Amino acid sequence: MYHDPESHFPEGALAAASLPPLRVGLIGLGTVGAGTLQVLQRNRHEIALRAGRPIRVTVATARNLQRAASVLGPGVRLVSDAQTLIQDAEVDVVVEAVGGTELPREWLLQALALGKPVVTANKALLAHHGSEIFAAASAAGTSVAFEGAVAVSIPIIKALREGLGANRIEWVAGIINGTSNFILSAMRERGLGFEAALAEAQRLGYAEADPAFDVDGVDAAHKLTLLSAMAFGTPVQFDRVHIEGIRHLQSQDVRLAERLGYRVKLLGITRRQPDGLELRVHPALLPADQLLAQVNGSMNGILVKGDASGVTMYYGAGAGSEPTASAVIADLIDLARLHGRPHDHRVPHLAFQPAALRPLPVLPMAALRGAYYLRWSAEDDAGLGPLMARLAAALEAHRIPVRRLERVPADAGQAPAVVVLTGRALEGDVLALREAMRAGVLESTDVNHAPQTSAWLRIESLA
Amino acid sequence: MYHDPESHFPEGALAAASLPPLRVGLIGLGTVGAGTLQVLQRNRHEIALRAGRPIRVTVATARNLQRAASVLGPGVRLVSDAQTLIQDAEVDVVVEAVGGTELPREWLLQALALGKPVVTANKALLAHHGSEIFAAASAAGTSVAFEGAVAVSIPIIKALREGLGANRIEWVAGIINGTSNFILSAMRERGLGFEAALAEAQRLGYAEADPAFDVDGVDAAHKLTLLSAMAFGTPVQFDRVHIEGIRHLQSQDVRLAERLGYRVKLLGITRRQPDGLELRVHPALLPADQLLAQVNGSMNGILVKGDASGVTMYYGAGAGSEPTASAVIADLIDLARLHGRPHDHRVPHLAFQPAALRPLPVLPMAALRGAYYLRWSAEDDAGLGPLMARLAAALEAHRIPVRRLERVPADAGQAPAVVVLTGRALEGDVLALREAMRAGVLESTDVNHAPQTSAWLRIESLA
Repeated sequence: MYHDPESHFPEGALAAASLPPLRVGLIGLGTVGAGTLQVLQRNRHEIALRAGRPIRVTVATARNLQRAASVLGPGVRLVSDAQTLIQDAEVDVVVEAVGGTELPREWLLQALALGKPVVTANKALLAHHGSEIFAAASAAGTSVAFEGAVAVSIPIIKALREGLGANRIEWVAGIINGTSNFILSAMRERGLGFEAALAEAQRLGYAEADPAFDVDGVDAAHKLTLLSAMAFGTPVQFDRVHIEGIRHLQSQDVRLAERLGYRVKLLGITRRQPDGLELRVHPALLPADQLLAQVNGSMNGILVKGDASGVTMYYGAGAGSEPTASAVIADLIDLARLHGRPHDHRVPHLAFQPAALRPLPVLPMAALRGAYYLRWSAEDDAGLGPLMARLAAALEAHRIPVRRLERVPADAGQAPAVVVLTGRALEGDVLALREAMRAGVLESTDVNHAPQTSAWLRIESLA
Repeated sequence: MYHDPESHFPEGALAAASLPPLRVGLIGLGTVGAGTLQVLQRNRHEIALRAGRPIRVTVATARNLQRAASVLGPGVRLVSDAQTLIQDAEVDVVVEAVGGTELPREWLLQALALGKPVVTANKALLAHHGSEIFAAASAAGTSVAFEGAVAVSIPIIKALREGLGANRIEWVAGIINGTSNFILSAMRERGLGFEAALAEAQRLGYAEADPAFDVDGVDAAHKLTLLSAMAFGTPVQFDRVHIEGIRHLQSQDVRLAERLGYRVKLLGITRRQPDGLELRVHPALLPADQLLAQVNGSMNGILVKGDASGVTMYYGAGAGSEPTASAVIADLIDLARLHGRPHDHRVPHLAFQPAALRPLPVLPMAALRGAYYLRWSAEDDAGLGPLMARLAAALEAHRIPVRRLERVPADAGQAPAVVVLTGRALEGDVLALREAMRAGVLESTDVNHAPQTSAWLRIESLA
């Protein structure tokens, strides 16, 4: 009978996991490392009974050896450096839980050269050096597992590489940076400006002291790089991602979007087109009633469109110690099943057989076709009429269909504005329109005093 | 360079999938079988490059051989019956795509006895005979794959068994019957009654001529049986699922729920408690702003709460030819990777090593603690005052905390009513309250004319 809520399986059940333990070397005892250690210990029965063998951390390194010694239970040896750990005879698998790109790259290559598989949640590392690292793993007959590298708690890599393996993937789109999503949610829900929302995110631990990677879209681009490669069978091509962050987003536009039935989200989008790939990270308007628009706070959500599956969505925590540990340990369980066996039939790193990967051209943003939100502010309500007239003419001249054209009078210290929702237009035409309007505006009215006299955002409808 | 939108990979790339094909015997060419054939053909390049070898249907059976012959391409042999197919030397893997429980059970056992792995999306079969079938597979050193058996297009089985393998699962809850969800969405969005919504679902192909399995909760219970077993390491225990369908749901309650900020959904819920499992299918109120409440039409959505991952959600089509094929083929790709190798390190059928599975007691519904929506109707507005007074006293007497008590006057032919939202209460107390109120109502007013004088629904808050 089952009585102990602390232990799902009684001690005796462990006999069912009869193989010798998988021995893990853990580089780094920070947020991810400590979480991994903790979950491996707490759920050791469940994990062993799923994997068919126990999974145990045998060796670890840490920046602060003294503090680490207090965290570690008995049976874990602390060593002074990663090289020593990697070479240790009691390490079957190496977990890299440090971050950064240069040192981890060396460690991974060292471990792989010894035929030891590696687990990492380091998206920056793989977005930059993935091709080299995956090739090294294949050459050594072993593998690199990285479920934690995109949207940590959500097994999106397993879904994309395996669960949807029957499909020709059409596009992948998602909210894949929790910090930005937290800031955007705070801007919308409480009318905060970007700086105030960022400060709150920092106070609550959702943003780092230097938030650039998150709010400038770089972290999302790292993750999108991996998703795109796995969806379409390309090598990682981080340097070709178009990246815009949320730093320059105005709270006025967040508010106007809301009033028009949209929410502003930082999205990563990759889509296959006949002549190449879309590969882009930027803030965009989503219809408020779409499921992805409802992903709030620091949560992540990813949509995948397959030709057979249709749209599927995956949602969960995108950061955090134990959510990341959940992914790292899922990888360890996969490796435990393979331990001592050839890896040649393992799921390929980027979903497709390595020899079949080939780069696809990435389409320039000016060639994108989509719908747009456009705003121009005027100095006073009296300026709206002339602005609207000039705008309507310019839209016509630039072949941009208008779905909605709206006059927004001055309100609570906010300059009056004209807002346009366009139909499907070529982004190059929208850029030309903005250029033409800028010239015109400077001629006819003095808008140099306004902090930002215009804004534009893409509208995405992901269904 | 990449130019042909019809073919993701050029013909030459197939050389990277160098192993001999996996040969599939397909029993049944109905919705699922025909979809599987079609997607295997259309996406053969992607599939081969993911699996490392081509996957080809070599033999098939069909009820209507003549029609089947017109569907099949060259290279697929039609045979007269499943037994012949299973024994065919050119069949490595058997796909069961027929449905029903008794014949498929025999076929699966026959194929497994020959050491041939089987793929099926047949939840009824596995909910009833899973234990026998999985044991036969293990004994024969092979396996049964069933990703399509729960929420077809969503790789939820892979997520639960592998992606979340690090976690102690706390609960799983979901909208896992598309027909019922379509009907509930139509009732809410267009104010239809159950019968009218069902008729529309039937007209549009979302409900079968005999809708009992879907609207009475049986299909959802089959799926919940599998989810619960995989989450908690129990054998399948379908006969212990508490099942209520949506057939008796009143449109008045759907409307009132909406007005109070909730949506009515048919949910499957399984949760680990200190003294056993919750295992139940029934309609329930969900707060309208929760993500699961936004899953509309025939779509499915499943939440999983893990102790490390937190809540993750999975969303997608829950039925249909190609969405099911997506799951069946994902299973075939997994099997293709294992083909010719021992299956002993494969993911266990029910997530945990078979020897560790043990039944857990299923808690009686009366022992459930939760919040409730209660409605009693009166004959006229004048009856509301006395009803409300008696109800308040009865709630107090039965230790049921009141969160909200509301008088709903007669409206558009609808009898006036009193509605209660309770705080956390014992379901046994709620049942006793209803019993007491029934006695009282019959004494004091003649409510025998009203079509339904009271209703109650559980309120679930899944976060």
